[in-house]
Amino acid sequence: MTLESVPPAAPISELVHRARDGQPRAVGRLISLIEDGHPQLPELASALVPHTGNAQIVGFTGPPGVGKSTATSALVSSLRAGGKRVGVLAVDPSSPFSGGALLGDRIRMGEHATDSGVFIRSMATRGHLGGLAWATPQAARVLDAAGFDVVLIETVGVGQSEVDVVSLADTTVVLLAPGMGDGIQAAKAGVLEIADVFVVNKADRDGAESVVRDLKQMISLGRKELGSSNMGGPSWRPRIVQSVASRDEGIDEIVESISAHHDWMNESGELARRRQRRASSEVEAIAIERLRAELGDLRGGDALDSLAARVVGRELDPYAAADSLIADLGR
Amino acid sequence: MTLESVPPAAPISELVHRARDGQPRAVGRLISLIEDGHPQLPELASALVPHTGNAQIVGFTGPPGVGKSTATSALVSSLRAGGKRVGVLAVDPSSPFSGGALLGDRIRMGEHATDSGVFIRSMATRGHLGGLAWATPQAARVLDAAGFDVVLIETVGVGQSEVDVVSLADTTVVLLAPGMGDGIQAAKAGVLEIADVFVVNKADRDGAESVVRDLKQMISLGRKELGSSNMGGPSWRPRIVQSVASRDEGIDEIVESISAHHDWMNESGELARRRQRRASSEVEAIAIERLRAELGDLRGGDALDSLAARVVGRELDPYAAADSLIADLGR
Repeated sequence: MTLESVPPAAPISELVHRARDGQPRAVGRLISLIEDGHPQLPELASALVPHTGNAQIVGFTGPPGVGKSTATSALVSSLRAGGKRVGVLAVDPSSPFSGGALLGDRIRMGEHATDSGVFIRSMATRGHLGGLAWATPQAARVLDAAGFDVVLIETVGVGQSEVDVVSLADTTVVLLAPGMGDGIQAAKAGVLEIADVFVVNKADRDGAESVVRDLKQMISLGRKELGSSNMGGPSWRPRIVQSVASRDEGIDEIVESISAHHDWMNESGELARRRQRRASSEVEAIAIERLRAELGDLRGGDALDSLAARVVGRELDPYAAADSLIADLGR
Repeated sequence: MTLESVPPAAPISELVHRARDGQPRAVGRLISLIEDGHPQLPELASALVPHTGNAQIVGFTGPPGVGKSTATSALVSSLRAGGKRVGVLAVDPSSPFSGGALLGDRIRMGEHATDSGVFIRSMATRGHLGGLAWATPQAARVLDAAGFDVVLIETVGVGQSEVDVVSLADTTVVLLAPGMGDGIQAAKAGVLEIADVFVVNKADRDGAESVVRDLKQMISLGRKELGSSNMGGPSWRPRIVQSVASRDEGIDEIVESISAHHDWMNESGELARRRQRRASSEVEAIAIERLRAELGDLRGGDALDSLAARVVGRELDPYAAADSLIADLGR
């Protein structure tokens, strides 16, 4: 996190006002402040919170090559046709060197560029491990406060941190495709278990039926192991939708499944539980980030460097060094 | 991290002794203690540190489907033929539900199962974001102390946390292959910039030459941007090796490149710099983990839950909640 001391071009309250007024540049500017770890983020969060809680946060993930961008774009069109305002946060693992997000095939989303009911943003997460957990819910809060009905958080869905982020959505959609080799295997690590809706995209290709069959079997096994996922009330059985996003086939069914899940979440009380979990996770991530920044200040003051040198020199083990470092925090 | 209070089957000092004596079960048991976040880890680190510093830590990464497991296995054979003892840590993103690593095609490594000069282990990282950064260097330390000459850390190389882990190796090898669609694109996010050696595997396939050409161009551009990476002395220009791992072609060249990089690292002083950086990162990760555990204790005590409920209820913004949480740490 870079703690820049440069003030934003306009006061936070003014930017929030403009964002709520539907000005996309203000929305973008607020998300940039979050990415940059601007010192006024507490003020921003405080200004946004009263206006939040209305958007449905949808996590959208799957391994590379399943057609995620095409499906996202088609999904946006379908949601728009239903009168929804849609925000998209495309979360890319960032380069430790350039710090930049890969825009790549984000270009395909160009068809929505002139639609004021759509806001699309690639998010970079700078530097450190907790970046995604820390920035994504805050960016989603901006879109929520700005009146977007649905916020799609799109991730590559391979790393653990992305699983963590997407697992904090109200509804998690996992996209797969036939003929990905070890595609399902790659996605298996974490994301399959958290899916509320499965989309088998490129369903016109050989092997789609076998992906569906594998998913059905996995869902049956998972339900047996886990038992009912909520206490009382009917539980949610993950839906499986087949689509060919490039031809807009199956997209409305995805939207319908997301909507059905949202209804179930409201009725079952699961929505409140997930939002509580998301808030816990965010508060914890912010607290960790603050403590990390304090450790980072120590790094600037050479404390960490000299402890590390003693570890390399085999004088000190890293636990003893960590104890010293924490003691230096003045606790 | 689960802080188990169950003591290990044998005292730490005894396990360390057995591991240094070449007993693979003791090595495996010590790595399990690390994965489990056992309370005696400080004692373990302290017992290991005096015996470390001899192994070359090699990060080995690339997107799914490039033949990483086959290449790793061939690399192990080649290193063994050169008389080296080799430890392999295969780092898999873990499932937040099962907590288990995917063994998958780890089976292909079976040919080394009876070789006492080889130790292969899939590592799971439980639960939270910093898991990889926290556990991997400690597991590598076990292998180093147990007398392995080379420790290969194999990751999928897509998530940020994996880039962070692999960037802490002495030498980083990035594996690519032609015909991966957006394979290079997928790898681009972070790992390309940190490669010391590029391997273009499946080099008998169409498109291999174009991957090599792209890499050469990228390396030239990168060097122009970054300038020389070390002060004084010759800098290291990332090597590009072509291989067909399934036929053992090019494997000795990979080993030779890794060895050449190690020699350069020693001569240029870069080895000391990287090890200092690795130790800094590890000490910081342990310190963060300790602070996180303290926050977790607060969670057990409902402080975090009640703060999160107030955030959901829009009474409190998450920064104010994080401040309260840190204040509760008694600082």
